[in-house]
Amino acid sequence: MTVQEISTPYLIFLGAVENSRDAKTGQGLVDWRPELCVGQLRYPGCSADLGLPDLTVAEAYDRGARSLVIGIASFGGRFEPEWLDTFEEAMLAGLDIVSGMHTRLRSESRLAGVAGKTGRRLIDVRVPPDGIPVGSGRRRSGNRVLMVGTDCCVGKKYTALALHRELLSRGQDASFRATGQTGIMIAGSGIPMDAVVSDFLAGAAEMLSPDNDAGHWDVIEGQGSLFHPAYAAVTLGLLHGSQPDALVLCHEATRSCIDGYPDYAIPPLAYCIESYLEAGRLTNAKVRFVGVSLNCSGLEASARAAAIARVREETGLVVADPMGPGAGVLVDALLTVVR
Amino acid sequence: MTVQEISTPYLIFLGAVENSRDAKTGQGLVDWRPELCVGQLRYPGCSADLGLPDLTVAEAYDRGARSLVIGIASFGGRFEPEWLDTFEEAMLAGLDIVSGMHTRLRSESRLAGVAGKTGRRLIDVRVPPDGIPVGSGRRRSGNRVLMVGTDCCVGKKYTALALHRELLSRGQDASFRATGQTGIMIAGSGIPMDAVVSDFLAGAAEMLSPDNDAGHWDVIEGQGSLFHPAYAAVTLGLLHGSQPDALVLCHEATRSCIDGYPDYAIPPLAYCIESYLEAGRLTNAKVRFVGVSLNCSGLEASARAAAIARVREETGLVVADPMGPGAGVLVDALLTVVR
Repeated sequence: MTVQEISTPYLIFLGAVENSRDAKTGQGLVDWRPELCVGQLRYPGCSADLGLPDLTVAEAYDRGARSLVIGIASFGGRFEPEWLDTFEEAMLAGLDIVSGMHTRLRSESRLAGVAGKTGRRLIDVRVPPDGIPVGSGRRRSGNRVLMVGTDCCVGKKYTALALHRELLSRGQDASFRATGQTGIMIAGSGIPMDAVVSDFLAGAAEMLSPDNDAGHWDVIEGQGSLFHPAYAAVTLGLLHGSQPDALVLCHEATRSCIDGYPDYAIPPLAYCIESYLEAGRLTNAKVRFVGVSLNCSGLEASARAAAIARVREETGLVVADPMGPGAGVLVDALLTVVR
Repeated sequence: MTVQEISTPYLIFLGAVENSRDAKTGQGLVDWRPELCVGQLRYPGCSADLGLPDLTVAEAYDRGARSLVIGIASFGGRFEPEWLDTFEEAMLAGLDIVSGMHTRLRSESRLAGVAGKTGRRLIDVRVPPDGIPVGSGRRRSGNRVLMVGTDCCVGKKYTALALHRELLSRGQDASFRATGQTGIMIAGSGIPMDAVVSDFLAGAAEMLSPDNDAGHWDVIEGQGSLFHPAYAAVTLGLLHGSQPDALVLCHEATRSCIDGYPDYAIPPLAYCIESYLEAGRLTNAKVRFVGVSLNCSGLEASARAAAIARVREETGLVVADPMGPGAGVLVDALLTVVR
């Protein structure tokens, strides 16, 4: 497992990001670990805002920050050249740099040099652990629920975290299993599935949720979508290796096309459900859906109840807004399924 | 693209491999580039035999060999410690080492040291090229036919090579696109799909078969199987990125379970066909099957015609044995499809 000791609290770096969806790493930290976030660092033109004080690296250090965390989930995961100036400045001011990008901090010789000189650390949470095995397909003990999506960035991580919190609050034995950089920063451990070499994807998912007690739930963060022309492979490997007993379909209520791929329409939810079940049955014949997590944050508050009712009728499943009142109904359905 | 200048001819290293299917890299070279193979090196107990002279590294060098090629496609891709003795001896005798394993030759400090001392090269064909983009999902010009399998090691590479040869012999414009280590050794270029970081799988497949002339065919080697509990993700990423116009289903006539996974039965061929079409339609709505490549090498010669007839009836498709009389009927079907 990638378990990184990250120095806290954090200054969240947003650069000049134009789309608040692309700041989802920072947003996730603010939502689930607000006590760790002292400020944000934004370039002119940045249109995302996490509601944190805007700080320079020096100001952040003075307020206690000990890591600059890259809060951007950028397309393709590459660095912008001007970021390197900021990271160097941050290390000189006393901060470690924490990244969930594909490109490794350490691969930038300039940063590696400053790290060596200052003793500050370059922490890449997107580096998979060593020794991931090829998937075995062997059934494991314990229970697993996996979030699956109609697209990326629809609320899979939020739903998993909300389910996990609700299970714990009911006295259930449960673990949140992080599969992406933000989840790993929140949880402190996990496997960045999209950075795993493809031959080992299912094996990584098996490793992430090992044998457990009969009553234990692994609540597994999902990745991508089976209907995404670039990322469906990640989704399938995670699904096969997780061998979920239960699935939650995550959808964003206003989304009609795959984000950034206007030629790719999101299929009807009933088709999505059937496709995920068909694929999931390969490694767990009893897989079933327990509900839909409908992200209504893009709808007027007055339109949300109707949207939820529509999806309930369309799918015949329990529907909850994970950003709304909570994951209670999903957990009710989940605990009914295993009995 | 991974284009490696490999010194020829080859000594094929088989170690103590117990299963001739695991020697498929060596077998592929012998079948498709016999003029490059001067001998084989086998440990006591090796039960695979490529029909080449058994040679020591010194004898191989004397007969002209300039590279030792690891002819084994081993489970998980790790090295055996005793192989390192042989590789060191080979470098001292004057041979480069060529590997398609996941573990990189250069990561073995002992080998790197000998390479530095002797000037011999450590060539890892399983290292993907730099700069693979995230998949775009954009439709490309030209025509593509992809091999898809019911399992690993059923004849996908052979079928693609046979199709390619047949297309060229008819004066068609065609390229063989290698996606695995043996194919890359045979073709001299390609992308090792199973070594690509999973986020970039579809993008790698797009890069492998770029825009081309309207009459051109990319004949794309397949990988894995949608019904394999460990490797289905590789298969799906390759399928989505290839955007094939045509598919050939590759099956081994005696195979009833996924090799090495006795709990995983191979589904009925009609189910396999429908599953591949369903998945393929995401990026090419017009994808269709042109035929079945039925590997009959495990059947008595007298049983082959009946097996082919059975599959023809079961699927309603043209069926050919790629190891048999040739890929002519598949190419007939392929060229009919595009008209």
